[in-house]
Amino acid sequence: MSKKVRIYPVIVAGGSGTRLWPFSREATPKQLLCLSDEKSLIEKSVARCRYFTTEKTYIVAMPYLAEKIRYNTKNVAINYIEEPTKRGTAAAIALAVREIYKKDPEGVITVLTADHELDDKRLGEDLKEASCAAAEKESIVLLGIEPTGPETGYGYIKVDKKLKEYKECYVSGGFVEKPDKRTAEKYLSSGDFLWNSGMFVATAKTFASEIGKYLPKLSGLINAKDSEVEKIFESLKNISFDDGVLEKTKNILVLKTDLYWNDLGSWRSVYELLPKREKGNYTDGNCISRNNENTMIFNKTGRLVVGVGLKNTVIVDTEDSTLVCDLDMAQEVKEVVDTIKSSGRKEHLEHKTTHRPWGRYTILDEGAGFKVKFIHVNPGEKLSLQSHKHRSEHWVVVKGEAKVTNGGKVIVLKQNESTYIPAEATHRLENEGKVELTIVEVQSGSYLGEDDIVRFEDVYERKTIKSK
Amino acid sequence: MSKKVRIYPVIVAGGSGTRLWPFSREATPKQLLCLSDEKSLIEKSVARCRYFTTEKTYIVAMPYLAEKIRYNTKNVAINYIEEPTKRGTAAAIALAVREIYKKDPEGVITVLTADHELDDKRLGEDLKEASCAAAEKESIVLLGIEPTGPETGYGYIKVDKKLKEYKECYVSGGFVEKPDKRTAEKYLSSGDFLWNSGMFVATAKTFASEIGKYLPKLSGLINAKDSEVEKIFESLKNISFDDGVLEKTKNILVLKTDLYWNDLGSWRSVYELLPKREKGNYTDGNCISRNNENTMIFNKTGRLVVGVGLKNTVIVDTEDSTLVCDLDMAQEVKEVVDTIKSSGRKEHLEHKTTHRPWGRYTILDEGAGFKVKFIHVNPGEKLSLQSHKHRSEHWVVVKGEAKVTNGGKVIVLKQNESTYIPAEATHRLENEGKVELTIVEVQSGSYLGEDDIVRFEDVYERKTIKSK
Repeated sequence: MSKKVRIYPVIVAGGSGTRLWPFSREATPKQLLCLSDEKSLIEKSVARCRYFTTEKTYIVAMPYLAEKIRYNTKNVAINYIEEPTKRGTAAAIALAVREIYKKDPEGVITVLTADHELDDKRLGEDLKEASCAAAEKESIVLLGIEPTGPETGYGYIKVDKKLKEYKECYVSGGFVEKPDKRTAEKYLSSGDFLWNSGMFVATAKTFASEIGKYLPKLSGLINAKDSEVEKIFESLKNISFDDGVLEKTKNILVLKTDLYWNDLGSWRSVYELLPKREKGNYTDGNCISRNNENTMIFNKTGRLVVGVGLKNTVIVDTEDSTLVCDLDMAQEVKEVVDTIKSSGRKEHLEHKTTHRPWGRYTILDEGAGFKVKFIHVNPGEKLSLQSHKHRSEHWVVVKGEAKVTNGGKVIVLKQNESTYIPAEATHRLENEGKVELTIVEVQSGSYLGEDDIVRFEDVYERKTIKSK
Repeated sequence: MSKKVRIYPVIVAGGSGTRLWPFSREATPKQLLCLSDEKSLIEKSVARCRYFTTEKTYIVAMPYLAEKIRYNTKNVAINYIEEPTKRGTAAAIALAVREIYKKDPEGVITVLTADHELDDKRLGEDLKEASCAAAEKESIVLLGIEPTGPETGYGYIKVDKKLKEYKECYVSGGFVEKPDKRTAEKYLSSGDFLWNSGMFVATAKTFASEIGKYLPKLSGLINAKDSEVEKIFESLKNISFDDGVLEKTKNILVLKTDLYWNDLGSWRSVYELLPKREKGNYTDGNCISRNNENTMIFNKTGRLVVGVGLKNTVIVDTEDSTLVCDLDMAQEVKEVVDTIKSSGRKEHLEHKTTHRPWGRYTILDEGAGFKVKFIHVNPGEKLSLQSHKHRSEHWVVVKGEAKVTNGGKVIVLKQNESTYIPAEATHRLENEGKVELTIVEVQSGSYLGEDDIVRFEDVYERKTIKSK
């Protein structure tokens, strides 16, 4: 822990949002959720980097998550890397390695998860230790967590002989898949098996050379010119860094730690994290809990949820879906999401309410050729100057005061006043007041997707095109 | 069963809607629900009268249920009696006795429940038998159901010696309260105790004289002139017919029957009624049921409900509330509703969607000074010609074509067209088309209750006032 190394944190913010459904969705995967407090997991993941480095954090994610992650981390300077398309964590990590390797090949990259809960301070100490070992040994160093129970939901890593020069650094004895209960019990009592935390470190140089050994096509990406990246990326196979590199290389060490760590991999993990009240119950939001035991009611809606006489159960309520699940079967939520997808439903995609930098909107209802939304604009904020090709919009102000640009004209609408925005008209909605502005928007048209939008001007630096 | 008697069915449609919450509400109590098919319980209760009489059915209920009960029974001619105010079943029954006694004192009145499931044909036979006995013996005859289990949720009646001249008619041995489990088991094995079905018969003359004996003030109501009814009614105490008359009189017989009867008194009773699939599961509506046992998912909304790994559980989903309850604790739902009431919430009052003779409306959201509704008008139907004192309305057509009267003008609005109805303007919404008309209504005003309405003309015979 003595040698001075430069540490570059890289957070891979993939995540498909299946295991914490219905709170997580494709459009708001786990890392964007606020579970134990008002901060999202990605926000907390970025904040904890301050415990071990002063370098800016790199976040690698798909473009469709870009706006939300930026909004979640708006108070921190980050290097945001967009994946041109979904090609797995190996390709995502290679994108970050590429940038860091160019400017500092000796720098240590810590690859961190975006959606776990852990002891920040202790992690900082562990990562500094691991970074020194990684730099000195020119190896990948993985954080291995000492198991506290015979967990069947995690991958394990076996440890072999200890390296004398470090406190708790071991030669890897190889990865093992999620075990059954009996095997997990054996692992626990042997003391030789650690949980794979999914966090690992190495110098940029080591990452580049290991990737080069096992995934040569990815090596091409690391050395490519900027103009070539997108094309190479699209030609890649979808593979995880675990499968493609970690499980193949021999150049890997394990730092053993008893760091508090919770991967929030299921509603049971979330239940374990949250503070219980009498009889092991946890409630959040509008609910009535009566004669329940070890039961969690998780409700972030205006709806009312009532649980009576339940045991070991989780209820998660959202505007369009409700999950009621035995906590011991929480892993099956993934299969539920598969069922939703395969039956052509849409409840896995997005919530009825979407947060934007200027406020939020809620879809109240939709049908053939129409959609009805509530739009809430925070004081002092404004939407982009925009137009839609396929839809017209009726706006009725129900709260606050709206400054409306509609074609060439600017008008002010008060409560109970309305206007009509024809298709193709350039328009903007703005709240110059001191209180929230709420309007009801009724859209009509042949196509009502959010992507039918041309932005001419935007205060939140979202993509715009030049005005006609 | 030989003597010819005239039978007048009386259905007391009180019901507060607490035990089947959240599907039942104060505005839509149990008798208005469709549980096992597309027919409401009140509709089925009226229809079964055809098994024992050709006389019109009398329905006694509070005015706020009038419109809905009329709509539910629109294909049948009924005598509808409105209770001036809520004064319990004794007063409600006296109102019906008053009308029947005036025209046919020898006629037999069968007092029936509005919200039970039973074997219609068998009930018809039992009631004919009971009616003969009631007329010949000038007694009240109560239907007593042979118990099929040690039920603790019902009241019991003891039977004494048998009357020779009838098949299964007994002298009453007195009523007993809901027993505990052990007592209920003793009752069951003794064979002397029957469930109190809540259905009883007597001639109008007998009812009048029994009421006169035990509730003399009610006797005044029976003999009062029409103009006096409301005043007398309001001066009455709130008392049930069971407490006020049945449990006091000695002039009562019991007809013992093994009629199939389910009082639908809790979600467990409903579960028992409904047809189960494999592993005792019942599902209705949008839901995914996975590894459940003896579990009912009851969902009449567009939302998705998922149950995983549940046992002996009922989930009832509605637009604004979800209940998840152990079936053995289904009786506690009543206490839940008390909690909702006492905490100042509104989920016990009405559903988000309200059915009207012309179609239905759904409240999408409401806040200070505004309310947003979807209004669906069936083809060929029209709302009343009306005005509101305190609110103005924006209407946007999203489906079909609306004929709109607004002040002196009549206009036609197509999809994506809108209009504004100022407060106090006389207006009407009409669907002359062949497809459903859907509009979004945004109301603004200082008071937005449904009772801010003046009707000038109505095709459904709801109360109107003369046009100004």
